[in-house]
Amino acid sequence: MPRVVVQVSDINNIDQALTSCNNLINEIPDAVVEVVFHQSAISAVVRGSNVEDRIRDLMKRGVIVIACRNSMRSRNISEDQLIDGVKIVNAGVAEIVRKQAEGWAYLKL
Amino acid sequence: MPRVVVQVSDINNIDQALTSCNNLINEIPDAVVEVVFHQSAISAVVRGSNVEDRIRDLMKRGVIVIACRNSMRSRNISEDQLIDGVKIVNAGVAEIVRKQAEGWAYLKL
Amino acid sequence: MPRVVVQVSDINNIDQALTSCNNLINEIPDAVVEVVFHQSAISAVVRGSNVEDRIRDLMKRGVIVIACRNSMRSRNISEDQLIDGVKIVNAGVAEIVRKQAEGWAYLKL
Repeated sequence: MPRVVVQVSDINNIDQALTSCNNLINEIPDAVVEVVFHQSAISAVVRGSNVEDRIRDLMKRGVIVIACRNSMRSRNISEDQLIDGVKIVNAGVAEIVRKQAEGWAYLKL
Repeated sequence: MPRVVVQVSDINNIDQALTSCNNLINEIPDAVVEVVFHQSAISAVVRGSNVEDRIRDLMKRGVIVIACRNSMRSRNISEDQLIDGVKIVNAGVAEIVRKQAEGWAYLKL
Repeated sequence: MPRVVVQVSDINNIDQALTSCNNLINEIPDAVVEVVFHQSAISAVVRGSNVEDRIRDLMKRGVIVIACRNSMRSRNISEDQLIDGVKIVNAGVAEIVRKQAEGWAYLKL
């Protein structure tokens, strides 16, 4: 069962990135997929973002959605502003490294 | 013998990406290199693209060149428009994940 | 002890990339981190760059900083223009591939 940690950094490419996530799980339905939002893309997982519905759909499909606390802090985003179900890690980049050390594949979108 | 799956996503950085591919095989001549074109970079592997000669050169040097069918579909590119020798996968991102699961290194350009 | 090879390509996102490097070592202090600067980001490791102090700070914190000779050559940057302590490899992309083949995690910023 493939496990993949996906990095989404750039809010300017957010639609393409979310489409690629969907394409991935369409093609490998049994994959365990965790998507880490950091840098400017952190704003995608804030309630009211213009991709909120797409983020919720990913979670309904079983994708684990992660927000980077460092990125939240530097943009004054608080925990209670996040879309329900989004989890938080201290440092998105460290999460990506740790998952690879556990044998997960890595995908940068 | 190193095996590497390379992801090329952004048509705006296509010259740099192709130069990096060449640098890679110059430095590791025995590497098995597969380059996956998806998102906006899919247009690089269409016949008549302004990097067609560079794509053909990569294939002459032994590089496997892959087009993502999802990216082709969303841009109305048909199979017979691709440069001869380019192979197709359903989902470029899934290809990248599968190669890593088989032990290939990964490079995002 | 996690080992990570980090790729920094884009000078336009250099501040975010360096912040992410710092976040990584703050979160995993015992990680071995090597950062490879190539493509337009090569200019970050030239003496007098506007991130010179941040590059020096990373090296003080134990990060290995690498410049890609191919990228230097195409921008007419000579060895003696680099910030003291920066090391050189022939091809940054080959370095990234080799490190992964040795079991290092990979992070593209």
